Amino acid sequence: MASFEHDEAEWAPHSSPIAVVRPSSTEEVQAVVRACLAHRTPVVARGAGTGLSGGANATAGCVVIALDAMTAIKTIDELERYAVVEPGVVNDDLRAACAEHGLWYPPDPASSPWSTIGGNVATNAGGLCCVKYGVTRDYVMGMQVVTGTGDVVRLGRRTAKGVAGYDLAGLMVGSEGTLGIITEIVVKLRPLQDPQRTIAGYFDSVVDAGRAVSAVAAAGLTPSALELVDRQCLLAVDAWKNMGLSVDANAVLLGRVDTPDPAGEQEAQKMLACFDEAGASWSAVSTDQEEADALFAARRLAYPAMERLGPVLTEDVCVPKRHVAEMLSRIERIGLEYGITIANIAHAGDGNLHPLLITPRDDDAARVRAQAAFAEIIDAALELGGTVTGEHGVGLLKKDGLAKEVDPVVLAMHRSVKAALDPYGILNPGKIFD
Amino acid sequence: MASFEHDEAEWAPHSSPIAVVRPSSTEEVQAVVRACLAHRTPVVARGAGTGLSGGANATAGCVVIALDAMTAIKTIDELERYAVVEPGVVNDDLRAACAEHGLWYPPDPASSPWSTIGGNVATNAGGLCCVKYGVTRDYVMGMQVVTGTGDVVRLGRRTAKGVAGYDLAGLMVGSEGTLGIITEIVVKLRPLQDPQRTIAGYFDSVVDAGRAVSAVAAAGLTPSALELVDRQCLLAVDAWKNMGLSVDANAVLLGRVDTPDPAGEQEAQKMLACFDEAGASWSAVSTDQEEADALFAARRLAYPAMERLGPVLTEDVCVPKRHVAEMLSRIERIGLEYGITIANIAHAGDGNLHPLLITPRDDDAARVRAQAAFAEIIDAALELGGTVTGEHGVGLLKKDGLAKEVDPVVLAMHRSVKAALDPYGILNPGKIFD
Repeated sequence: MASFEHDEAEWAPHSSPIAVVRPSSTEEVQAVVRACLAHRTPVVARGAGTGLSGGANATAGCVVIALDAMTAIKTIDELERYAVVEPGVVNDDLRAACAEHGLWYPPDPASSPWSTIGGNVATNAGGLCCVKYGVTRDYVMGMQVVTGTGDVVRLGRRTAKGVAGYDLAGLMVGSEGTLGIITEIVVKLRPLQDPQRTIAGYFDSVVDAGRAVSAVAAAGLTPSALELVDRQCLLAVDAWKNMGLSVDANAVLLGRVDTPDPAGEQEAQKMLACFDEAGASWSAVSTDQEEADALFAARRLAYPAMERLGPVLTEDVCVPKRHVAEMLSRIERIGLEYGITIANIAHAGDGNLHPLLITPRDDDAARVRAQAAFAEIIDAALELGGTVTGEHGVGLLKKDGLAKEVDPVVLAMHRSVKAALDPYGILNPGKIFD
Repeated sequence: MASFEHDEAEWAPHSSPIAVVRPSSTEEVQAVVRACLAHRTPVVARGAGTGLSGGANATAGCVVIALDAMTAIKTIDELERYAVVEPGVVNDDLRAACAEHGLWYPPDPASSPWSTIGGNVATNAGGLCCVKYGVTRDYVMGMQVVTGTGDVVRLGRRTAKGVAGYDLAGLMVGSEGTLGIITEIVVKLRPLQDPQRTIAGYFDSVVDAGRAVSAVAAAGLTPSALELVDRQCLLAVDAWKNMGLSVDANAVLLGRVDTPDPAGEQEAQKMLACFDEAGASWSAVSTDQEEADALFAARRLAYPAMERLGPVLTEDVCVPKRHVAEMLSRIERIGLEYGITIANIAHAGDGNLHPLLITPRDDDAARVRAQAAFAEIIDAALELGGTVTGEHGVGLLKKDGLAKEVDPVVLAMHRSVKAALDPYGILNPGKIFD
């Protein structure tokens, strides 16, 4: 049972569940919820457990409902462009199944080889393509939910449009299992993405790279991805996967453009100019698909690669695009101040930064310093008009952050909505807010 | 005060408000809500009053808060691509202001020359471009709201991404003034749309046109608009505006494609082929921008043009794209059965149909037949897997429809959420559900 006790958030508290259940149907989920209701036993739903905020961590005396066995892709409707899936379907598996129908499910968290659609919906997961194609929320049309009262309901729709009643399906997205347990999801699909060009830029500092990000936005470009990876991450990936990445830079920006030619070529050249003007030491539009794919694969592997080196506390702030450079500069200063090594990966084009706070194993003093630095990064993001979590969710790690970000009245509204939909307080209690 | 008593929904009940207030600031809205709270007086917020479901109708003893005087466009941020506006800004005015910055606010309800952004958000308005660019919900990033407890709060965000807490901003969208009064809105913007090609098709029947709509979806096309207008609407517009529309067809499909060439030209030809295969009597890719604009202007004017002829009960069902032809055929049969003239306009590419039930003035028997036909159209849409309202909202006219569409448990969830956020029940009571 230990493997169902927590997600991948570092140092987030967790306890032993009294039971782990792996249902294979909505009816089984409902039966578990009803049994738990009868005993007022907390229920913690989880997918693959790849979360980074502790949202799926077991609390004392809870029953964990692991939805990873509900893996059916029930429908892929080419004409209406939607898929109906169970929550345990792995993101990449859905994307592969859709591709066979010439369709595309865009949301692509870096965890896409492992994370599930249910978990993606519960946390409103983002990813690399969000900068042009939006987040999970933008693709959820409807769902089946086991409610806090043990009922099974359908929310949302399967039509292209619909405004019948409150957007309760939308409310469930990102609610981290605190308002209902999602047992089936209808997701919108798009036609397959056009081929992409990759624009790479090397920078002497992450701050220069941050200035390039603002320049891309100021130029009116809409890249299909704009990622930042720093040297430490690339070295860690290379040490692990031996991909032959030899990068002579402290920060790499990886832009992508999927606009068809001739506009696509123009956009790529414009992005290149933005990189150069921000002080890139080297930049190029890649004509080598393999090389480009390797760089993006390295981006996706950065987090697990860093994790191999020791405990990693992962930040997830999101700031206005014009403040990306300033935020990266503050992160550098905070790292120095607290004596913490901070590596950086970022969905830079969205202003969504993932500073990785790296500590030696079993070094309690370093842990305390890292946690203080973590809090300071949150404060800096809020000061710059940002948010404490761009895509990972509040869970346990960002509860203090949420309370700093929103008005006490807004927190009270959260509690009221929670009490309205989970009147017995059994759904993942103690997450998002106390 | 009579002009503030109701919106444009035909035969939806309304009463005289005890007062109409036209505040010019959030603080003034708050002061009114607090005064109403003290007296437990219902508050009905409204924008331009162009709604078609009675959502803004005054109820007995209420205070109407007309937000049409709050018309400031506070910010248009080119780099971050958002605008901050007051709720009374007219949709077309925002679009024009954004265009000066090379930016585009896509949602374009046919009422865009008159309707306000606040009303658009409160009803989650759709429009012509939704088939490719989504609805109002997809563009709302954040807002300021006066709550049911008389507090002023900010919901949502101004960053590209953000998952800090429940999506309460999203919950407000489409809640028709029953959960809060929106006093400021942050909307996402896109770069200006590329030039569009228009593809017109004439059909002997609306059902043939409906088959063309499914064919376009089946061909994997994503038009930037796909509208249906029938002969009766075109004749009514021409009689009013003398636009010289002489159309030798019972139904016209107007498709648009905004993909840059060469792909755009290919898509236009593919759409033309879909029209022809579905039995178009005439079809062409328009090279005459003026002619194309006239046809779309006629589409936008269809509803007010029909209204000049007598009371018009406007339907708003949305069905799966594959059932558009079947739904149009059922609407024809229902019109015959009840002896009601039904004209059709439709955001056909979304499956969102607006049958217009036309009755002679002061003919009570016809009104009763029209209302029965209205209910039967709703039943038919639900049978085909559709929804009772695609974009106009529930208001008063679709309360029965909503109760048919969703499970009683889901209605109970609506009531719980309403009670949670409007504990004194003063915000637009009696709308959406009893």
